[in-house]
Amino acid sequence: GSTVALGEKEATRLPQEREEVAERHAKGQKENVSYWGVPPSKVTKDDGTAWNWSCFRPWETYKADLSIDLKKHHAPLTALDKLAFWTVKSMRFPTDIFFQRRYGCRAMMLETVAAVPGMVGGMLLHCKSLRRFEHSGGWIKALLEEAENERMHLMTFMEVAKPRWYERALVFAVQGVFFNAYFLGYLISPKFAHRVVGYLEEEAIHSYTEFLKELDNGNIENVPAPAIAIDYWQLPKGSTLRDVVMVVRADEAHHRDVNHFASDIHYQGRELKEAPAPIGYH
Amino acid sequence: GSTVALGEKEATRLPQEREEVAERHAKGQKENVSYWGVPPSKVTKDDGTAWNWSCFRPWETYKADLSIDLKKHHAPLTALDKLAFWTVKSMRFPTDIFFQRRYGCRAMMLETVAAVPGMVGGMLLHCKSLRRFEHSGGWIKALLEEAENERMHLMTFMEVAKPRWYERALVFAVQGVFFNAYFLGYLISPKFAHRVVGYLEEEAIHSYTEFLKELDNGNIENVPAPAIAIDYWQLPKGSTLRDVVMVVRADEAHHRDVNHFASDIHYQGRELKEAPAPIGYH
Ligand SMILES: [Fe+2]
Ligand SMILES: [Fe+2]
Ligand SMILES: [Fe+2]
Ligand SMILES: [Fe+2]
Repeated sequence: GSTVALGEKEATRLPQEREEVAERHAKGQKENVSYWGVPPSKVTKDDGTAWNWSCFRPWETYKADLSIDLKKHHAPLTALDKLAFWTVKSMRFPTDIFFQRRYGCRAMMLETVAAVPGMVGGMLLHCKSLRRFEHSGGWIKALLEEAENERMHLMTFMEVAKPRWYERALVFAVQGVFFNAYFLGYLISPKFAHRVVGYLEEEAIHSYTEFLKELDNGNIENVPAPAIAIDYWQLPKGSTLRDVVMVVRADEAHHRDVNHFASDIHYQGRELKEAPAPIGYH
Repeated sequence: GSTVALGEKEATRLPQEREEVAERHAKGQKENVSYWGVPPSKVTKDDGTAWNWSCFRPWETYKADLSIDLKKHHAPLTALDKLAFWTVKSMRFPTDIFFQRRYGCRAMMLETVAAVPGMVGGMLLHCKSLRRFEHSGGWIKALLEEAENERMHLMTFMEVAKPRWYERALVFAVQGVFFNAYFLGYLISPKFAHRVVGYLEEEAIHSYTEFLKELDNGNIENVPAPAIAIDYWQLPKGSTLRDVVMVVRADEAHHRDVNHFASDIHYQGRELKEAPAPIGYH
């Protein structure tokens, strides 16, 4: 068979392996250039057409519950609650100055931060479950779901706003600081960490409401919804950015509930694993 | 309504909130003691009976593909491959001495380590996707799936072997060292990190083959399979520990393929996101 020109690295493989790879390569299986090549599982939409997203599957899409109460707020009573509340409020001040009314850019930038706590919390609970030989009650999955949901917010807003170089640099710096601060915070007091995220989500709901106002008064163009959003939130064809902001805001309200709930569980002197986790809550 | 005796912390809440919580509590919704209480979604088996696991759902269970080639091995050709290979081989030596032929205990202890790389890799790819505003190609999900799969191995073997206090202490120490070492290793060279995991999985397949031998010659009692294993791997009723070890070994072989593949992608000078991830490969 015709030996396809393989990269230098491939050439150093055992002859027999290279034959196999070359053979597969010649048969047009380009993507499996590696001897260990694992082909992605083929997934199609209900109507049989190809599913073109690799980071989420049709059964992971959903219709957001827009009926969720956006006004719910956790009245900070204990000192720790007040500390969490004012920590978040103090972060709001410089953020408002930096972004002014540029809510598209704000959403995109803040989602790079919002997607960190769920991943850090999920990872720390995963490691705890391992070293203590104990179950998680589903909370690892609930927090990792939140992190992935927030990352999908970013993947969506990336389509409608392009970050400038200094915004990219800012994101690098902020992630480095926030990741370590939250990692430490969660190790020390998950009660406090979840309360902070609860209040961050309350602020996010407020910001997305402002975003809607800017869209409605025409300051931000109500462009068509990105394809990824239409598939991910099962939005009707022809949906616009406004419809996307509505479902994203509903997601934030769900994260608010999950995190305030997680903090409350600690307030009751219990561990998360003692209360079944709200998996698939959106 | 009768006010249920609530914990001191609950008593400090706003009166109106406490009434609501007390009311719900009186109506027997014990688990939602929190104002933010999010009830877990009710899930049932196909036969309508209650699903009693909170960390995995019926649609996340699967039949392991036992036909996978257990002999596949990556011949270490480059210096980095050889370093990975000997790193793993050198870890095998003290492990064999510590565990001798106690493969039940060995499996349980090593699964606490095996579940770390997937989580660390998934988390680092997640953070990279955020700060670079780029897609992941599904690899975050593929690696987190591996980590959760390995954790389920632990949840299973925990049912048949009970760790002693010094084994628990050892797991604490090993996790602290391995987590940080792998975190650093992955930051520096994902190519090397994935190759190490590939070789660790090759060793795991070997150990599980030895475990089967000990079961077959009666040195380890072939107890009934734990309930969690029967549900997770869709095993027939009446399955035994031997059946569990067979499906766990098949899982390890799938992880071996995914990690050697991930390393190969780096060897070809590409990033993981450029090759669609093998999600749901088991
Ligand atoms: Fe978000
Ligand atoms: Fe959020
Ligand atoms: Fe395993
Ligand atoms: Fe493994």
